[in-house]
Amino acid sequence: MIVAMQEGAEETQIQQVIDQLVKLGFEVHRSSGARMTVLGAVGTGIDFDIRNLELLPGVQEVHRISAPYKLAGRSFRPEGTIVRLPNGVNIGGNDVVVMAGPCSVESREQLFSTAEAVAKAGARVLRGGAFKPRSSPYSFQGHGEEALKLLREAGEKFNLPVISEVMEISQIPLMMPYVDILQVGARNMQNFNLLRELGKVRKPVLLKRGIAATLEELLLSAEYIMAGGNYDVILCERGIRTFETYTRNTMDISAIPIIHKLSHLPMTADPSHGTGRRDKVPPMARAAVAAGADALLIEVHCNPEKAFSDGAQSLFPDQFSKLMDELRMIAPAVGRKVG
Amino acid sequence: MIVAMQEGAEETQIQQVIDQLVKLGFEVHRSSGARMTVLGAVGTGIDFDIRNLELLPGVQEVHRISAPYKLAGRSFRPEGTIVRLPNGVNIGGNDVVVMAGPCSVESREQLFSTAEAVAKAGARVLRGGAFKPRSSPYSFQGHGEEALKLLREAGEKFNLPVISEVMEISQIPLMMPYVDILQVGARNMQNFNLLRELGKVRKPVLLKRGIAATLEELLLSAEYIMAGGNYDVILCERGIRTFETYTRNTMDISAIPIIHKLSHLPMTADPSHGTGRRDKVPPMARAAVAAGADALLIEVHCNPEKAFSDGAQSLFPDQFSKLMDELRMIAPAVGRKVG
Amino acid sequence: MIVAMQEGAEETQIQQVIDQLVKLGFEVHRSSGARMTVLGAVGTGIDFDIRNLELLPGVQEVHRISAPYKLAGRSFRPEGTIVRLPNGVNIGGNDVVVMAGPCSVESREQLFSTAEAVAKAGARVLRGGAFKPRSSPYSFQGHGEEALKLLREAGEKFNLPVISEVMEISQIPLMMPYVDILQVGARNMQNFNLLRELGKVRKPVLLKRGIAATLEELLLSAEYIMAGGNYDVILCERGIRTFETYTRNTMDISAIPIIHKLSHLPMTADPSHGTGRRDKVPPMARAAVAAGADALLIEVHCNPEKAFSDGAQSLFPDQFSKLMDELRMIAPAVGRKVG
Amino acid sequence: MIVAMQEGAEETQIQQVIDQLVKLGFEVHRSSGARMTVLGAVGTGIDFDIRNLELLPGVQEVHRISAPYKLAGRSFRPEGTIVRLPNGVNIGGNDVVVMAGPCSVESREQLFSTAEAVAKAGARVLRGGAFKPRSSPYSFQGHGEEALKLLREAGEKFNLPVISEVMEISQIPLMMPYVDILQVGARNMQNFNLLRELGKVRKPVLLKRGIAATLEELLLSAEYIMAGGNYDVILCERGIRTFETYTRNTMDISAIPIIHKLSHLPMTADPSHGTGRRDKVPPMARAAVAAGADALLIEVHCNPEKAFSDGAQSLFPDQFSKLMDELRMIAPAVGRKVG
Repeated sequence: MIVAMQEGAEETQIQQVIDQLVKLGFEVHRSSGARMTVLGAVGTGIDFDIRNLELLPGVQEVHRISAPYKLAGRSFRPEGTIVRLPNGVNIGGNDVVVMAGPCSVESREQLFSTAEAVAKAGARVLRGGAFKPRSSPYSFQGHGEEALKLLREAGEKFNLPVISEVMEISQIPLMMPYVDILQVGARNMQNFNLLRELGKVRKPVLLKRGIAATLEELLLSAEYIMAGGNYDVILCERGIRTFETYTRNTMDISAIPIIHKLSHLPMTADPSHGTGRRDKVPPMARAAVAAGADALLIEVHCNPEKAFSDGAQSLFPDQFSKLMDELRMIAPAVGRKVG
Repeated sequence: MIVAMQEGAEETQIQQVIDQLVKLGFEVHRSSGARMTVLGAVGTGIDFDIRNLELLPGVQEVHRISAPYKLAGRSFRPEGTIVRLPNGVNIGGNDVVVMAGPCSVESREQLFSTAEAVAKAGARVLRGGAFKPRSSPYSFQGHGEEALKLLREAGEKFNLPVISEVMEISQIPLMMPYVDILQVGARNMQNFNLLRELGKVRKPVLLKRGIAATLEELLLSAEYIMAGGNYDVILCERGIRTFETYTRNTMDISAIPIIHKLSHLPMTADPSHGTGRRDKVPPMARAAVAAGADALLIEVHCNPEKAFSDGAQSLFPDQFSKLMDELRMIAPAVGRKVG
Repeated sequence: MIVAMQEGAEETQIQQVIDQLVKLGFEVHRSSGARMTVLGAVGTGIDFDIRNLELLPGVQEVHRISAPYKLAGRSFRPEGTIVRLPNGVNIGGNDVVVMAGPCSVESREQLFSTAEAVAKAGARVLRGGAFKPRSSPYSFQGHGEEALKLLREAGEKFNLPVISEVMEISQIPLMMPYVDILQVGARNMQNFNLLRELGKVRKPVLLKRGIAATLEELLLSAEYIMAGGNYDVILCERGIRTFETYTRNTMDISAIPIIHKLSHLPMTADPSHGTGRRDKVPPMARAAVAAGADALLIEVHCNPEKAFSDGAQSLFPDQFSKLMDELRMIAPAVGRKVG
Repeated sequence: MIVAMQEGAEETQIQQVIDQLVKLGFEVHRSSGARMTVLGAVGTGIDFDIRNLELLPGVQEVHRISAPYKLAGRSFRPEGTIVRLPNGVNIGGNDVVVMAGPCSVESREQLFSTAEAVAKAGARVLRGGAFKPRSSPYSFQGHGEEALKLLREAGEKFNLPVISEVMEISQIPLMMPYVDILQVGARNMQNFNLLRELGKVRKPVLLKRGIAATLEELLLSAEYIMAGGNYDVILCERGIRTFETYTRNTMDISAIPIIHKLSHLPMTADPSHGTGRRDKVPPMARAAVAAGADALLIEVHCNPEKAFSDGAQSLFPDQFSKLMDELRMIAPAVGRKVG
């Protein structure tokens, strides 16, 4: 913590701030220059509301120094985390892993034909929604456990580990037998009760960035999960909300190299939700790999025009296959390969 | 739904769009001008992903015409909704209602001394948190049911109905005996499972706008609750996330008159979370009343410097009392009075 | 400047940063705690790119302490600046000054009938555009000097000082004989060449906040003008760009109390551009006065439906008159009166 | 133009809107369904403020159909524009062109050693600033014409066409003899007087997107230049302002494929300003090429730590050379090559 006093702050004001910091358990270092005094406070408490200092008389500015997360920070594991899945699929290693499949599991036929197509094109993980968080109460809400069973079956048939979204605590035990990665959607990034429960689970969690979440907040949410003992957290950029309305969201590609600097956790990207439009998915998928993404999450549907949800952002199988070829050309530029 | 075809769109393309619309149950009207063709589609389906049309060949733009919500729209109750609470407190009527109290219930003494102060100054509802959603896993998380009991007791002693935040479905039955209004926090505005459960409850719900939620999304979340049969929904502006970082959030005062135009539901404001800084709470509380807010939600603490959470945005009791006097002067300019 | 070194930074890295700071003319204070080292650098240079330090090896974070502006800061004139106009109109004093008139000067009749109406309702300054910056090359671009002459004439007839927008350096000498306040539009807030020229002028300048400008950037632009010797700068909030699209811009009412804390310059608001819709102008004008605005800039047109520009955000004269009555009721709540 | 009337709008209200549209020169088509009436208005006027209709009684929503730009739209030149520079460099063709050089021209030695390095690494255009728009009045403001002369000389020596930024109208004639592309910075994207003058020039103009500009606004600014007869406009993404503060700006990579769909103009990217940090430039440069950028603008400095401006975002020459190798690997994935 650094506290900069206003020019002309009185000695009693400075002393009051020092007393407050000492009371809070900080060790205080004082630097007084010709014009102003700066206090450096070093301590162990990670949780402190700096606004309480900002409002003391004579204080100009307060800056938190240490990041508010520990386990998620790069220095906790400088060599980087590799999340190991069944069938030898590793996220965070040398391979760029592509996770693909339909937005929602709609039927056995839809799922299996899509899974077959993506497996053939080179996807290494199968995605599919069983519970759908929809912004309208009048929309399709997912097939639930039935969908999970189909996912498991399709995953085994095509040799693909399975990822699906968990929306609330009560769904965790239901999902455990079926999925290999539990996905937390952007709207739940700060559902702290859910995150805490996922900390107790021993399966990898893919945590999506909220549409208005800073990268620091994303790491703090990862910390919630890790604080419970589950270190297999995979992060995911899926678009943030900005003033530009042409696309649903603005996909923040720079989040990929930034997270790689701040954290040891694998960083992935979801260009389907990141753009919301099928024709923008391939360029943004390519961009994500070129920027260093460890994995991609891509919606593919055997018949997007008939999809129950998000058909507009789902690729046709042949588009996906062409995209995989392009990604295979790009990955070597960042010293990787596409599985 | 309006579909504008590109200049030079071919007749077969136009026909394909018309066929698609008819298949979806719309009645289609076609207008062809010198340069372009526009299709008007009128139908009853409220849930439709317009991107599916945008991607058809020859289509330039698609606009949804009718709002995606019904029950929350102004035309559903043109005269406006008044939410009636115990003790004759009405939100949405002629009185501007001030709801005040501490961020978290910390102790009997803290709660009762704060409640006494706010009641004396003119607050009509008592607020206080029992479950605290905190962005750090290492922060104070609330006293739970014990806090709810104290709230109820304090509310009865000072003749104030009680509002407190519900964070997940399992807390609803626990809270029902103690609170008069269930508050949904900004982070849960799109927790659709929670909203659906709150639709089954027969207590008013105060729904806060998410920090990145459009006003249309806020109304759609209200629709979720109302679709379950609970029409006593109160909306609340509490700041949105923008590029300006001086305050935690940018409080969107214009949301107040906009919601009053679009919806019949009462619209309130929370200047404490809206600004995050004690010294900015009074000006923004005054601004909200001047813009027509039906109620305010204000954090007051008998000893903000020792607060377990959000002390920096809590008013001292005497600041609150002075603010109430100012609000009493402003309300008549909008034909209201402060209770 | 505060430089926080990473945990485990090596002594040679720390020394390199210290050397760099000393070379740049800073006096350095070092605080080493159990886990980390913090360097406080005090100096006189106001212009320094902190990213150069952030990129040095071993550095975790760098914070600038002193504000990058001096003349515009509150401490330069703690008692506040009052800008004095002809006819005894003062901006920044006890009166809330309302500046009103048409978006563009269209004709003698339009200007004079509008000016008469706003003067009668209590406006103290006449606004009107002579040069119109329009986002489409095919739009009305203003009547130029002819408009300025009419403004001057109307101002004298109705005893109102005159404000009009300057768009480029070459217009300054042209405008000097006609206007009492030179207005800089939001798009020119960082037109630094223009600001520098306005620093040489001896007329008040009203500087509007850019739609994506932070308040710090607004003050830095004011500093440009003041550095040239012109201290009569009036600041103006007119809406920022956010993700919400219902209104053209999101008017940041909290900018008013924030600027009053950070700066001594008068802070005003333009609810016409801030909302872009006539029906939202009165609530936001009331909110601005309730939050402490020193003046308002409001578009009024004797016949808004026929306006050449921005008719949709112009008030009818009788709406304006009613609004003035409301503002007169609100101002006493902040210890002011409406002239 | 599409006007959707409210449910229950009266016949007289509908008639009033139709009359208004006809008066404005539109041909009106009316569609009345069971619940509502929709009016389609087809006309030639490109400049119309739709808010004037939105405010008429009985109107629910108004949508503009045709894009407000013509010359910049894809349909004006479906095959795409190629901007031809001296020495056979083409922007918008098969080659991805890299434009590189220092932020500001500081000295002959600095410029020539940087120019030599970038030419050797494969850059095809030399960039360098002569007039620097700086947000602080106390910063280095550029060497002006002297810098332009050096640029020209270096460009000729290393066989590189030259690009430099023009900040105001008076600089245009000064720059004409020296530069091959006139660059318009983000802050001047809506300096309409400057754009109009550039429409009269017969040199290519590179127009940067403003930090809060939508892509539609960018195209509208291009339209200003093209309306004057100068069709050689190159567009450039350089980061937009969002709530995320880790980087200076959020570089919107999706702008590249979007502009390619909406417009025929070449679309380029500036990862140096887009990120503001040297370590983020290579990943974002790679991402831009993978997303289909026609050219890149990259700051390189022979000694970035001593740069007068923006050293923190300038690459070292060897970093640039390594980046060029990576780009050469990526370009074939999008059917291009790096010159």
